[in-house]
Amino acid sequence: MKNLDLVIRGGEVITASDHARADVGVRDGKIVAVGIGLPKGKREIDARGLIVMPGGIDSHVHLAQPSAEGTVMADGFESGTRSAIAGGNTTVIPFALQSRGMSLRDAVADYHRKADGQAYCDYGFHIILTDPTPEALGQELPALVSRGYTSIKVFMTYDDMVLNDRELLEVFDAAGDCGALVMVHCEGYDAIRFMTEKLEKAGKISPYYHAVSRPEAVEREAAHRAISHAEITGVPIMIVHVSGREAMEQIRWARNRGLRIMGETCPQYVSLSADDLKGLNMDDTGSKYVCSPPPRDPESWAAIWSGIQTGVFQTFSSDHCPFYFEGKLGKKSAAARSSFRWVPNGIPGVAVRMPLLWSEGVMKGRISPNEFVALTSTNHARIYGLAQKGSIAPGFDADLTLWDPKRKITITQSLMEHGADYTPWEGVEVTGWPAMTILRGEIMMRDGEVLGNPTMGNFLPREISNEALRARESGDPF
Amino acid sequence: MKNLDLVIRGGEVITASDHARADVGVRDGKIVAVGIGLPKGKREIDARGLIVMPGGIDSHVHLAQPSAEGTVMADGFESGTRSAIAGGNTTVIPFALQSRGMSLRDAVADYHRKADGQAYCDYGFHIILTDPTPEALGQELPALVSRGYTSIKVFMTYDDMVLNDRELLEVFDAAGDCGALVMVHCEGYDAIRFMTEKLEKAGKISPYYHAVSRPEAVEREAAHRAISHAEITGVPIMIVHVSGREAMEQIRWARNRGLRIMGETCPQYVSLSADDLKGLNMDDTGSKYVCSPPPRDPESWAAIWSGIQTGVFQTFSSDHCPFYFEGKLGKKSAAARSSFRWVPNGIPGVAVRMPLLWSEGVMKGRISPNEFVALTSTNHARIYGLAQKGSIAPGFDADLTLWDPKRKITITQSLMEHGADYTPWEGVEVTGWPAMTILRGEIMMRDGEVLGNPTMGNFLPREISNEALRARESGDPF
Amino acid sequence: MKNLDLVIRGGEVITASDHARADVGVRDGKIVAVGIGLPKGKREIDARGLIVMPGGIDSHVHLAQPSAEGTVMADGFESGTRSAIAGGNTTVIPFALQSRGMSLRDAVADYHRKADGQAYCDYGFHIILTDPTPEALGQELPALVSRGYTSIKVFMTYDDMVLNDRELLEVFDAAGDCGALVMVHCEGYDAIRFMTEKLEKAGKISPYYHAVSRPEAVEREAAHRAISHAEITGVPIMIVHVSGREAMEQIRWARNRGLRIMGETCPQYVSLSADDLKGLNMDDTGSKYVCSPPPRDPESWAAIWSGIQTGVFQTFSSDHCPFYFEGKLGKKSAAARSSFRWVPNGIPGVAVRMPLLWSEGVMKGRISPNEFVALTSTNHARIYGLAQKGSIAPGFDADLTLWDPKRKITITQSLMEHGADYTPWEGVEVTGWPAMTILRGEIMMRDGEVLGNPTMGNFLPREISNEALRARESGDPF
Amino acid sequence: MKNLDLVIRGGEVITASDHARADVGVRDGKIVAVGIGLPKGKREIDARGLIVMPGGIDSHVHLAQPSAEGTVMADGFESGTRSAIAGGNTTVIPFALQSRGMSLRDAVADYHRKADGQAYCDYGFHIILTDPTPEALGQELPALVSRGYTSIKVFMTYDDMVLNDRELLEVFDAAGDCGALVMVHCEGYDAIRFMTEKLEKAGKISPYYHAVSRPEAVEREAAHRAISHAEITGVPIMIVHVSGREAMEQIRWARNRGLRIMGETCPQYVSLSADDLKGLNMDDTGSKYVCSPPPRDPESWAAIWSGIQTGVFQTFSSDHCPFYFEGKLGKKSAAARSSFRWVPNGIPGVAVRMPLLWSEGVMKGRISPNEFVALTSTNHARIYGLAQKGSIAPGFDADLTLWDPKRKITITQSLMEHGADYTPWEGVEVTGWPAMTILRGEIMMRDGEVLGNPTMGNFLPREISNEALRARESGDPF
Repeated sequence: MKNLDLVIRGGEVITASDHARADVGVRDGKIVAVGIGLPKGKREIDARGLIVMPGGIDSHVHLAQPSAEGTVMADGFESGTRSAIAGGNTTVIPFALQSRGMSLRDAVADYHRKADGQAYCDYGFHIILTDPTPEALGQELPALVSRGYTSIKVFMTYDDMVLNDRELLEVFDAAGDCGALVMVHCEGYDAIRFMTEKLEKAGKISPYYHAVSRPEAVEREAAHRAISHAEITGVPIMIVHVSGREAMEQIRWARNRGLRIMGETCPQYVSLSADDLKGLNMDDTGSKYVCSPPPRDPESWAAIWSGIQTGVFQTFSSDHCPFYFEGKLGKKSAAARSSFRWVPNGIPGVAVRMPLLWSEGVMKGRISPNEFVALTSTNHARIYGLAQKGSIAPGFDADLTLWDPKRKITITQSLMEHGADYTPWEGVEVTGWPAMTILRGEIMMRDGEVLGNPTMGNFLPREISNEALRARESGDPF
Repeated sequence: MKNLDLVIRGGEVITASDHARADVGVRDGKIVAVGIGLPKGKREIDARGLIVMPGGIDSHVHLAQPSAEGTVMADGFESGTRSAIAGGNTTVIPFALQSRGMSLRDAVADYHRKADGQAYCDYGFHIILTDPTPEALGQELPALVSRGYTSIKVFMTYDDMVLNDRELLEVFDAAGDCGALVMVHCEGYDAIRFMTEKLEKAGKISPYYHAVSRPEAVEREAAHRAISHAEITGVPIMIVHVSGREAMEQIRWARNRGLRIMGETCPQYVSLSADDLKGLNMDDTGSKYVCSPPPRDPESWAAIWSGIQTGVFQTFSSDHCPFYFEGKLGKKSAAARSSFRWVPNGIPGVAVRMPLLWSEGVMKGRISPNEFVALTSTNHARIYGLAQKGSIAPGFDADLTLWDPKRKITITQSLMEHGADYTPWEGVEVTGWPAMTILRGEIMMRDGEVLGNPTMGNFLPREISNEALRARESGDPF
Repeated sequence: MKNLDLVIRGGEVITASDHARADVGVRDGKIVAVGIGLPKGKREIDARGLIVMPGGIDSHVHLAQPSAEGTVMADGFESGTRSAIAGGNTTVIPFALQSRGMSLRDAVADYHRKADGQAYCDYGFHIILTDPTPEALGQELPALVSRGYTSIKVFMTYDDMVLNDRELLEVFDAAGDCGALVMVHCEGYDAIRFMTEKLEKAGKISPYYHAVSRPEAVEREAAHRAISHAEITGVPIMIVHVSGREAMEQIRWARNRGLRIMGETCPQYVSLSADDLKGLNMDDTGSKYVCSPPPRDPESWAAIWSGIQTGVFQTFSSDHCPFYFEGKLGKKSAAARSSFRWVPNGIPGVAVRMPLLWSEGVMKGRISPNEFVALTSTNHARIYGLAQKGSIAPGFDADLTLWDPKRKITITQSLMEHGADYTPWEGVEVTGWPAMTILRGEIMMRDGEVLGNPTMGNFLPREISNEALRARESGDPF
Repeated sequence: MKNLDLVIRGGEVITASDHARADVGVRDGKIVAVGIGLPKGKREIDARGLIVMPGGIDSHVHLAQPSAEGTVMADGFESGTRSAIAGGNTTVIPFALQSRGMSLRDAVADYHRKADGQAYCDYGFHIILTDPTPEALGQELPALVSRGYTSIKVFMTYDDMVLNDRELLEVFDAAGDCGALVMVHCEGYDAIRFMTEKLEKAGKISPYYHAVSRPEAVEREAAHRAISHAEITGVPIMIVHVSGREAMEQIRWARNRGLRIMGETCPQYVSLSADDLKGLNMDDTGSKYVCSPPPRDPESWAAIWSGIQTGVFQTFSSDHCPFYFEGKLGKKSAAARSSFRWVPNGIPGVAVRMPLLWSEGVMKGRISPNEFVALTSTNHARIYGLAQKGSIAPGFDADLTLWDPKRKITITQSLMEHGADYTPWEGVEVTGWPAMTILRGEIMMRDGEVLGNPTMGNFLPREISNEALRARESGDPF
């Protein structure tokens, strides 16, 4: 109990289930004690009036990925993780994208190169699997899982990433064998294509029709299909970025039947709406809100809150996927600006995920502070195998966010610290904001100022997800 | 009221909603009066003690189709319609199969050649659409609809017939434009293939594994997908041969949401079970029960009855699809007998559809005699545009079945009059059996003896389904 | 086929399942033939351009009942049945109310006195059971059932009629034993009382608060309770005048579980709303719309339509319960006008039930003409044991309504022919109106003019309901 | 960090959300630190190989209550809390029963007398409210809430305790006003009475018919009714001791609609069955299993597990309600032994609650150790306002259970330490058993030996439940 490097003193310590007024003692980047009247540390932080919570973990962040539309993503690892730190996060899990024809190993190596020495916070990688060759599924995936890449993501849409049902079943099955947890982007490719072409033929090309081309039925159908594939192969899956009532109800239905189906949702699905996409032409600001699935409407927000409150969703992520506004307006050729189809899908959000959930969730009585911690940190750690993260308990990494629960902030671009040149929440007022972000005992942000440097974030090999472990142990469903 | 060709006197006339002790007067093949004390006809039938009901309409019958496995189907039009007549039916709607690469016109012409002069009962054609070319959807289909081929069937499985989601959407959309009603075989191709290969690898090749390879989740998923496509394109669909609780509940859910989704079920799904497929090896009798979806279990039967009782299902059809037992055992090469995969899918049933429903449904108090008529005749006529069929009312074709409601029969091959060399219901006792079948005023069957000849059945151009009409009128959902 | 008293020629005959262009031949008040080219009758009616349908049966009509609030009901049998005839009905089933302390026999005799020689249309009686003594349940009820009073109604609210749960169970059980069908008014007495007192204390006394005091949860809870009692005693019940989504969904849920629960709804629940009750004070017109359960809102209307379309509701009745507007304003003392509590519950509707359903249902594509007939006539006959009513078939009573399907009418008090001095639908435009009402072969109304006299309606002893028969046969649930 | 009275060293500390290998430091009966390498304490406990978890809180325990049947309850406070300690619990919340005619104040005083100096563990009191006079609801209840009696229980059955709907509404409303949390025993009194008399008349009197007299529909109906009352009054409620699928689904439905309905279940509903009640006559052992609601069957167990896994249930309690086997056999007069009706309802379980849940839940992979802690301790503390209990965190009471997760035990009477002369789980083998129970830093049980004395348990005034707080703040629903 001696020789503490750092003591955070007098804060309200809040975990996913508990709360206590206590000091947190840190040594060698680890929490070594939570107590009352801890001995003096080499460094002391006065946390009175603040909440001390586990550092935010954002398990759904896109960094440095190429866009299918040929646009440059607005955040590489440096700006993306800087933005994460500014928003109270200490860990992100971006994606290593396997392009078709590429090996998984090369995909992972590629993203390591992009991240190495460029991260303000810790990070792992989910592998986006677009080319499920026997080699990839049979050899590479088990090898990568054993090296800490324990989750993969598959897409049910997008020209360059979509897997067909046979491929999904093979991937689910292989993931089940080696313990990789599967994240699924659930929107039906063929239905979107069909509707997009219909709309284009009718001259309905402005950003708003992006939302029209992907109604809730399209997301719901894909969710049902993914659930069925998971049922048949006996594997757990995480359905990511659920946007509305219909897909939510599929997950609820599946869980009530005893299937291991998990759900994730995001700030855009409780605060943005399809109406935000409306505009007169392709030059207007509607494209700033284009993401997939699209934002819905206030009735959907209520359904998403119900899903949060009743345990349908375990994680609240940003799906941070930033583009420059200019890029959002399409490739620069006139041809490319002919349709919403060419607007890159995605919005930046890693910096505002936590404030938006606190403000809309905790401050409005929808969730408790403990549930906030579970949704923004602890559950991410457990589901994605980050054994040393997500708790305030001895032995865990000293990743801590000091939260000012009453601080009123108007969200604006200058606070975001991200690469994109706008934020969809410009002008939105929130209550609750991170006052300090501490990574393994180092202060990375204080009062809005990012202090660390991009060599301080570490790559995190991850353990097998508890959910995947259980599936693997229970064996083949046949 | 004079010059009646035929009077059926003194029976209990039962329609889909009414009942009356009355005479039925026929002239020129049409019903001209239902009354008490009708004048004497040229011919008189004493129907006292019998029920007089509209002739059975079996809207799901496969005749003279080639099997993917290369086996000859056991019934052409002559034996198939003969069996239909024996079972109390006066109309069947078999399929005209478009092979890939073939035009729809040629497909229809092909089946007309097979049927012409070979039918004991009246018939129309659904078109099985396997090659949805722009030509087929844009030109041929509207032309054929206008000539009375007002329904099509699509498959979500089978190597030689499966359509992908994009094709399904295009077909649904085109059908909506021209008013064709779409019937859908809902089982997921990729999932079946995946599971079949898994089972084969594990040496699980006997007929029982046919059922294992197509669990209810596979049917349910496909039903959900088809419903979603119908929702997106705004067209009504008929989900055929629903086998169990899970797909049934999808249809119920869709109907409760206001979608125009209809459902059909069959005798095998309330009386046969997956256990019937069990056996020691490929030579055993299990293959006699192989059909798709596979029969389930008594708990599923109860769910199907619930669906019948609560309006989830509108039609009760046979899905008559007969093969010789030898053919069921696979191609004659040793290689081909390596797996359940090669057993032709389908069983004969057109002759027993009505007795099985009467015996299990009416006699056991599950449905009323009126509901029996609706499920076996009237609803088929309305849904498939047979304006002159399915009722006992002036102006309608004099298609009548005289039903002996208390007659006890043990089902056996010799009563079937079909081409197959067995019946899956061999030895099953039923109560209720057709005593006479009358087609447009002609007695085609009396006391089990088929009396007419195969030139007496007419081709029936059909009107547009009421359900399809409404969809067409309501316009494109965009 | 000779000596027809009346032939209705050339109309479109529509029953609950069929349609045919045909003549209807009548002799001795009975239909004897439906045919093409029937011989000339003594009297001929040209029905070309009109629909000929079974005369409307309104199984939920209050006539000549005293109100708990001491107000005189605005319709006795003469004006009430006159209004029924004006609206296309040939049979009504009003109630014989047992006051507490009175025997069932006396209640029935009382209402026979009120009705005798005072009815323009045929009628039966449901018995309102308010005092379930052992004598009433054990002796009187079986005797009355055997004499044709085969249905009873019980109330879960109203000071002078409410039964507690023990009484409901005893009544259900006794009804099951003797085959009486039980109709249940489902609203929770204690909850209404509780809320009424709360509202009164808060000074919220205007008619609008009648609706506030009886939210959907109150109806839903009572429906669930009644269903549970029916499940425990193994008897079928009819839940009457269902007003909104929540109670509707309870019936749907029960039916899907296999229980014999039936449902009735009324015009007010698809066309009036709680907002109609709003007003500044007790003198305003809000009280004209006070009935129980209260009208809801357009979202509820949609739910009721869904219930109609999916078979949750079998009957569409008026719940005709007329009061003078002055009476609606409360007893004449100042004290009595202190609260919505004293406004008599009920509105007149027997004359507009059929036009409103045709206009909103058939004309707007929500239901078919066959379903219209089922909902307004045939199902009432079957469920309440009127063996000779509800069909157009030989042997049935010649009760016929000639319907002008395209006639546009603006509803107004002068068309109603009822005793009340207003109609809640004043000024509402409808399409479809009865052109002629025929009772057992006699023209009772033509072009809005009531022609018969009040000695022409007969009392109808009724058979046991099919639903009750099945329950009785299946025996005691223990 | 100095002067620690006690250090529990090297255990696996598990809370409702976290786990850590750490030492727990205690001073003055409070936890002051959780850390690695805490300084030596005056007393040390080696917890290596054991789990250190918050002491069990059993919020549903009946002690020293008179039985309606006149039988003496087998446990007073001394033996009951001794049994609790033996089973790993450090807090129980028994009931202070208001007999009719008695004031709430007297009821509370009465039970304080029974408990004072007689408790091995800490305790609070729920007030059983049987006589909701204006005085009780308006004056006494608010006063008692402010003194720490912050929860009440009401019964929907039992002659001497049942409240009618009006009373329930008044109680819910009053509880909402002052912040008392309402626990509801949901079984319908009238239905039970009705069925009991039916069964008795049929001579079905043995203990098994206790279960028959209270089918799931009876529990479901009462749950629905309680939920509706809660919805109308806008208050949260806890539905206690839920036994099966049907009531569970009502709670799930309510929660999905956004209502604050909570649920509790018990070991008997995942491990005992109605078949346990079967026997030849009134002397047999069936009566040992008589409790209300009755145990159901394995299918219900699965439904209860689903409810536990999906958050329908927040607490897992014993509903400890012990009687001597002789007492279970009825009053000693021959007359009284005439029916199951006179068998006292209740079984002992406080000592086996935690082992049964660990063994069936954690060991069989149904729940995680964290969920175990939430279900047996933390959630009880939060829901019932025990601010200093249920966590392992600085400032909380040092109530700790050292759990041996792999210990195999065969349950037998001698281990129970309760007053009853049998346990319903005699002979059942479990894995997982408490090795030590520590109450505010004092070792009360070690290796099965109870060490403390009955003066060591304190009365706990409780804070207002978070759930009740929110309801009170949101105001009157009108």
